[in-house]
Amino acid sequence: MAAIRKQAPVVHNITNYVVMNSTANALLAIGASPVMAHAAEEVEEMVAIAQALVINIGTLSESWVASMFKALRQARKRGIPVIFDPVGAGATAYRTRTARELIEIGHPTIIRGNASEIMALNDGLSKTKGVDSTAESDAAIATAQKLAQTHQCVVCISGATDYIIDSEKIVKIKNGHPLMAKVTGLGCTASALCGAFAAVEALPFAATAKAMAVMGIAGEMAVEKSAGPGSLQVSFLDVLYLLTEDNINKRLKIEE
Amino acid sequence: MAAIRKQAPVVHNITNYVVMNSTANALLAIGASPVMAHAAEEVEEMVAIAQALVINIGTLSESWVASMFKALRQARKRGIPVIFDPVGAGATAYRTRTARELIEIGHPTIIRGNASEIMALNDGLSKTKGVDSTAESDAAIATAQKLAQTHQCVVCISGATDYIIDSEKIVKIKNGHPLMAKVTGLGCTASALCGAFAAVEALPFAATAKAMAVMGIAGEMAVEKSAGPGSLQVSFLDVLYLLTEDNINKRLKIEE
Amino acid sequence: MAAIRKQAPVVHNITNYVVMNSTANALLAIGASPVMAHAAEEVEEMVAIAQALVINIGTLSESWVASMFKALRQARKRGIPVIFDPVGAGATAYRTRTARELIEIGHPTIIRGNASEIMALNDGLSKTKGVDSTAESDAAIATAQKLAQTHQCVVCISGATDYIIDSEKIVKIKNGHPLMAKVTGLGCTASALCGAFAAVEALPFAATAKAMAVMGIAGEMAVEKSAGPGSLQVSFLDVLYLLTEDNINKRLKIEE
Repeated sequence: MAAIRKQAPVVHNITNYVVMNSTANALLAIGASPVMAHAAEEVEEMVAIAQALVINIGTLSESWVASMFKALRQARKRGIPVIFDPVGAGATAYRTRTARELIEIGHPTIIRGNASEIMALNDGLSKTKGVDSTAESDAAIATAQKLAQTHQCVVCISGATDYIIDSEKIVKIKNGHPLMAKVTGLGCTASALCGAFAAVEALPFAATAKAMAVMGIAGEMAVEKSAGPGSLQVSFLDVLYLLTEDNINKRLKIEE
Repeated sequence: MAAIRKQAPVVHNITNYVVMNSTANALLAIGASPVMAHAAEEVEEMVAIAQALVINIGTLSESWVASMFKALRQARKRGIPVIFDPVGAGATAYRTRTARELIEIGHPTIIRGNASEIMALNDGLSKTKGVDSTAESDAAIATAQKLAQTHQCVVCISGATDYIIDSEKIVKIKNGHPLMAKVTGLGCTASALCGAFAAVEALPFAATAKAMAVMGIAGEMAVEKSAGPGSLQVSFLDVLYLLTEDNINKRLKIEE
Repeated sequence: MAAIRKQAPVVHNITNYVVMNSTANALLAIGASPVMAHAAEEVEEMVAIAQALVINIGTLSESWVASMFKALRQARKRGIPVIFDPVGAGATAYRTRTARELIEIGHPTIIRGNASEIMALNDGLSKTKGVDSTAESDAAIATAQKLAQTHQCVVCISGATDYIIDSEKIVKIKNGHPLMAKVTGLGCTASALCGAFAAVEALPFAATAKAMAVMGIAGEMAVEKSAGPGSLQVSFLDVLYLLTEDNINKRLKIEE
């Protein structure tokens, strides 16, 4: 966190309409410098000044997907970390197919989704109920491991327990609170924070674990100050801004 | 409300950029499962997994309108309820014409708008001042009745008094608070809640009345906890999440 | 402020996805009537019922820019004030070029940006770091003066000190608080408030100064009630709604 606050890395987001405001605010609160830009005319140039790229298909459409491909190619060329959030993969064939193609072409550094979404990336057999997860996280782990191995990336399955997985290891983080599922876009925020951490931390696995720990801990601290999901969305940003290493050390529930 | 919380119906929204976040949060707070998707490639498939479709023209453009038509046809085929929100009808010819065509082709189950918007759907004589209502609700009732009869649907005119109208009856709900007009998109939220209620309640008239009662009561309870429109937007979600049947029974101001 | 609250001017915004909700809420809180509409089919008609037009290129793309040109031509024809916010000018060639063309064709009444953005409008030599300013305000003043002279408009450079500049004079406003930079879109809100004030105040210079004073003062009052950037975004709207002339008179830090 200190590194993010000091370096204020530019995190370029091509994300969905629903969460743009809350994603930008979360990145500002953690100390990063968010940019949202999707025009074909400028995405490559914007990627060139960014320290991380976050791609999120929540409200995808043809022209946006074309820009995602452009941005991904540029990110690879520049060697900056790419975080991919396959929102709603499994819900429609278009979404599932696009998610797989973006991974195939884009070689993301980190893929973060809920269990349904992660499962949809591989076998196409799971059925997502809209954008909320229906699969058990445990059932998704095998898929995540295969994905991680095939694409040499980190896969994070988020849920009551967050699993951070690469081809060799699994770490579980058990922070967070069920009320967080009642605030739209906290999953998307998690992906954006992965971007902020990956921008300043050389190891993608460690960056993902740190981002998910911060999400969960900030979430549970914010719940303690909230009367419901509305105030949780607000408190979450306050807590993120004020979060200390000490908060994390005291609350972290990690299993390696 | 218990049925929504238990069944968590998927409500598919093709709505405007301004309110996507607050609409999704309101649907989550009431217990529904919101989905936002507008790409021509996937709207039909998304409608197929939804229990209600909400169409809102607040920031309409050509490609979005094309997807609205696709989604409406699919909703009709699947027999799920459709809620239509003619934001700003009457303000421009494009908006008025599109709203009428969407109704003509889409046969919505419920139409919800302010008095100006509802009047614009029929005679084209009223002039909307941007997206805020200028017509008197009373003057809009006749239009709403005609619309309800022609299209065999429920029409809701929202305002200080909400009118729920079909070809046979009128119910008035007098809950709510003037400060709600200072928060953008609470009208759009009302339409989305109509979708959540219509997803679990077989009678569209009852679903609309329940949704409007919940809006008004949650709104006035939230105002009591708010210092202004900013905190009202937040408290509204908290109250919606915590709302009980008892709150509704004690506060409901209904005239049949 | 009294004039805005009394007349509730329609402010037409063609702005970015990130800030649409917070911009609409800020305009409602100050007493204006916000409209967001960007379809080529209707922008001219929407401008025709507006008392001010605000153009913001934060998430620009080809079709949106085409509508901005259309809206600008209509605004000029109707003689209503135009506020231009060159978000991220200098970050990419597309953004810089588009911003310059919009000014060339659109003849804005007021241009508001941070120091980097303002500098990019003229010499193209400054490099913007994403959408956050990297240039010193002092270094941008000369550019602003040249812009103001060439285009006969008011230029506002916002930052720790806000500079309001035309071809003849400079006024500095030193209100505000650093935490405001941790809330996304408060710059965009400032541009929208310039629109609300310009709609009711004949002199663009005075309108800009008033809008920036209200922004800074509401911001610092809101910070006093906030635990962090999340609650600041909320409190800002509450304060804006409740703000009095007395608040302004007591807190205003202006240098002419």
